[in-house]
Amino acid sequence: MNYKLIRYILGWVLIMEAGLMLPALVVAVVYREWEGLGLLSTMGFCLAAGLALTLKAPKSKTMHAREGFVTVSFCWIALSAFGALPFVITRAIPNYIDALFETVSGFTTTGSTILTDVESMAHCLQFWRSFTHWIGGMGVLVFMMSILPLAGGSSMYMMKAESTGPSVGKLVPKVKGTAGLLYRMYIALSLLILVLLLLGDMPLFDSLITVFGTAGTGGFGIKNDSMASYSAYLQIVTTIFMIMFGFNFSFYYLVWKRKFKTAFRMTEVRAYLLIILVSIVLISINIYGMFDGVLETVRHAAFQVGTIITTTGFATTDFNQWPAFSKTILVMLMCIGACAGSTGGGIKVQRILILVRSIRNELDVITHPHHVRRQKMDGHVIEQSVIRSVNIFLAAYAAVFALSLLIISIDNFDFTTNFTAIAATLNNIGPGLEVVGPSGNYSGFSYLSKLVMTFDMLAGRLELFPLLILFSRSTWRK
Amino acid sequence: MNYKLIRYILGWVLIMEAGLMLPALVVAVVYREWEGLGLLSTMGFCLAAGLALTLKAPKSKTMHAREGFVTVSFCWIALSAFGALPFVITRAIPNYIDALFETVSGFTTTGSTILTDVESMAHCLQFWRSFTHWIGGMGVLVFMMSILPLAGGSSMYMMKAESTGPSVGKLVPKVKGTAGLLYRMYIALSLLILVLLLLGDMPLFDSLITVFGTAGTGGFGIKNDSMASYSAYLQIVTTIFMIMFGFNFSFYYLVWKRKFKTAFRMTEVRAYLLIILVSIVLISINIYGMFDGVLETVRHAAFQVGTIITTTGFATTDFNQWPAFSKTILVMLMCIGACAGSTGGGIKVQRILILVRSIRNELDVITHPHHVRRQKMDGHVIEQSVIRSVNIFLAAYAAVFALSLLIISIDNFDFTTNFTAIAATLNNIGPGLEVVGPSGNYSGFSYLSKLVMTFDMLAGRLELFPLLILFSRSTWRK
Repeated sequence: MNYKLIRYILGWVLIMEAGLMLPALVVAVVYREWEGLGLLSTMGFCLAAGLALTLKAPKSKTMHAREGFVTVSFCWIALSAFGALPFVITRAIPNYIDALFETVSGFTTTGSTILTDVESMAHCLQFWRSFTHWIGGMGVLVFMMSILPLAGGSSMYMMKAESTGPSVGKLVPKVKGTAGLLYRMYIALSLLILVLLLLGDMPLFDSLITVFGTAGTGGFGIKNDSMASYSAYLQIVTTIFMIMFGFNFSFYYLVWKRKFKTAFRMTEVRAYLLIILVSIVLISINIYGMFDGVLETVRHAAFQVGTIITTTGFATTDFNQWPAFSKTILVMLMCIGACAGSTGGGIKVQRILILVRSIRNELDVITHPHHVRRQKMDGHVIEQSVIRSVNIFLAAYAAVFALSLLIISIDNFDFTTNFTAIAATLNNIGPGLEVVGPSGNYSGFSYLSKLVMTFDMLAGRLELFPLLILFSRSTWRK
Repeated sequence: MNYKLIRYILGWVLIMEAGLMLPALVVAVVYREWEGLGLLSTMGFCLAAGLALTLKAPKSKTMHAREGFVTVSFCWIALSAFGALPFVITRAIPNYIDALFETVSGFTTTGSTILTDVESMAHCLQFWRSFTHWIGGMGVLVFMMSILPLAGGSSMYMMKAESTGPSVGKLVPKVKGTAGLLYRMYIALSLLILVLLLLGDMPLFDSLITVFGTAGTGGFGIKNDSMASYSAYLQIVTTIFMIMFGFNFSFYYLVWKRKFKTAFRMTEVRAYLLIILVSIVLISINIYGMFDGVLETVRHAAFQVGTIITTTGFATTDFNQWPAFSKTILVMLMCIGACAGSTGGGIKVQRILILVRSIRNELDVITHPHHVRRQKMDGHVIEQSVIRSVNIFLAAYAAVFALSLLIISIDNFDFTTNFTAIAATLNNIGPGLEVVGPSGNYSGFSYLSKLVMTFDMLAGRLELFPLLILFSRSTWRK
């Protein structure tokens, strides 16, 4: 294990984090909030630690798969550990474990909160809290790789560990190129929704917060009722962009290259849109009568479907009050999640497609044992190793889910609360049902449960394996 | 597809079912119950249909994998369809779908009931209802194969489809021999518990019912409070035998062959006992104070753990009143299930072990991509096709679970009821939580939901694939 390289990259990440706190500091200055001092001192800590760790450059920049995965996990943990400090220093969130939960929830674009009254928080802290969504959405290391040539040519492993979904193909051959391209598309889309929100008379501060939550598919808001008090126009814009940020970013690359036909033929994107459409129709029928007229019904159905499948976690209504059928659809969408290569969480549509095809394939094998079949997607053969990995991902997902559920059940909340709390954190959604529903929060859980869910949020964002290998003996073997 | 052979075997199964109703008819004569006429007329229908189907023997007795799987599914459906008739004819269960649910619940050794007052049912019908557990436990076709040489040498496929767990090895080379051996061990163990129950002063009728429920890991009782009113001795005997019927039957074969060392070293059996032990300890600590003293606490904990992991479904107390932690353990045990090659349901300990090892293996592959590793169990290499099949089993299991949950949620029961109702039927347990808890039943669900759960019980007992291939186009292709 190249520990020196890991230390070096870790240092750079912390230096970068100091820089990333600058916008929040600007907000503190604009609003003349003393809480800015909490940010300022944290920036000092980050810089000090970062500079100490980067004093000596490592001799070897060789990075193998395990270094890549371990580095990504360590960097995310370090980012969250330092990112939580402003909340603790300013006493906005007095307990460190609570602050860590909130910060991890931010970086992992989950949006689960332990705050009972977010509106009373200082603007600069609200800004930092939401800005972590925007940073975490596309990936911290992917961003760093796009500006710093830290790990030589082998930073591919880090990108693999940090980006979402099974890697079926790379957009462009060079990592640095891919990362830069992804970020340009990400920024362009973010600017677009910002403009549309401002046109809808949303205040600038609110608009920025909403953009961070939407683009990162995070879901932190600055109102206790999430998005319920915003106008129908703003809700519709948010719905559309949430769904757009759940697309596989290869789609935008293809559109940018003017390969419209290939773009719109992407199986995953089509399946994703189909799931959304069917869910909206079913829920609209199921909740009809709870709202005034068809249009409002569909608007609320579409918003909630969009917010859950993309794992954003905003809400325009308390869907905990909906009938069981609609709630069950939402719980399922929580687990399905957005497309691979998006900012969203969950199992990912791509994996679901591969799993469904695996099942179909296995049935064929049983009935016709001597036929040899290969799974294809969008014209490419899916490698056996990818299929195996996706299947084992499901097993690991179920195992982490079950163990987490067991531990948090010690707190003696009801089964639905526990189940959806894990579903909402492991899939990086935000709200669940019952106690953790859209009008509730996670403050009632014990610190043990909060640590478990903090782990789940990180595990969900990094798609299990990077975090799980930290617990595997073979990782640390020479 | 060799339709003629399928028809022929189907005919023999119905003839056999007529024979299997004889003991219940004897009960009717002993208790002088007019409901025996319901049994008698059903026997007539079975014989008539059976004889019609077996009039012409098929020219070819060649059976391929798909014929084997399709035959098993059809036979189980036919057995249940005819087996439900006595309940309908006697108006004990007036609605056919209810009767079908109850009968499938019997044959699949689930034990879920739609009856609100089982004590008011005639003895002969109670007997038939429970006897289906005993028949279904070891497998109907396995039994038939052991006495009739219907499908020539290729009945292996039917045995594979009907027996539980991933097939890691056969006990003895010839199917007929294996089947006969399994049944001899099954009968011997059944007689043993019968004697022990009678020694504990349980009435003969009650003892027989309890033996059928225990040996088949079914769980139908004849008391509204299940086993709660029986003595501590009877509860302890039942606990021990439930757990013993959850063993992999290879264990008993090895014991019979005096290979004690190999028997007690079986990884699956050890893991199974370890899970049971840990669960009993955790639950005992969690529920301490609800019962008088340590012994009674452990007795109730052990009974409930045994009844759930073996997927039997008896109860000595309403565990729906237990704290969330204990209930969550029970829900997990529901999904884990008993050992492969037992009469129990669920995913099976063997599969769980293979899945855990797959995850560990995948973590190794990520950190050391160039190492080649092979999974072993009890000294044998597990074939790649078995590992793949187990992984895809999990995917299919999750898919069936999710779809079923979605459909039954239309009835608008709470999430916990719906989730555990599917867990209890798909894993062939019996009771779930809340509405379908030990003191509740399944009568409140709509007929659509009951049909879905009837499908799930069959799918769970036959371990998904035999039933799922009926819906695969490639099965019916020439």
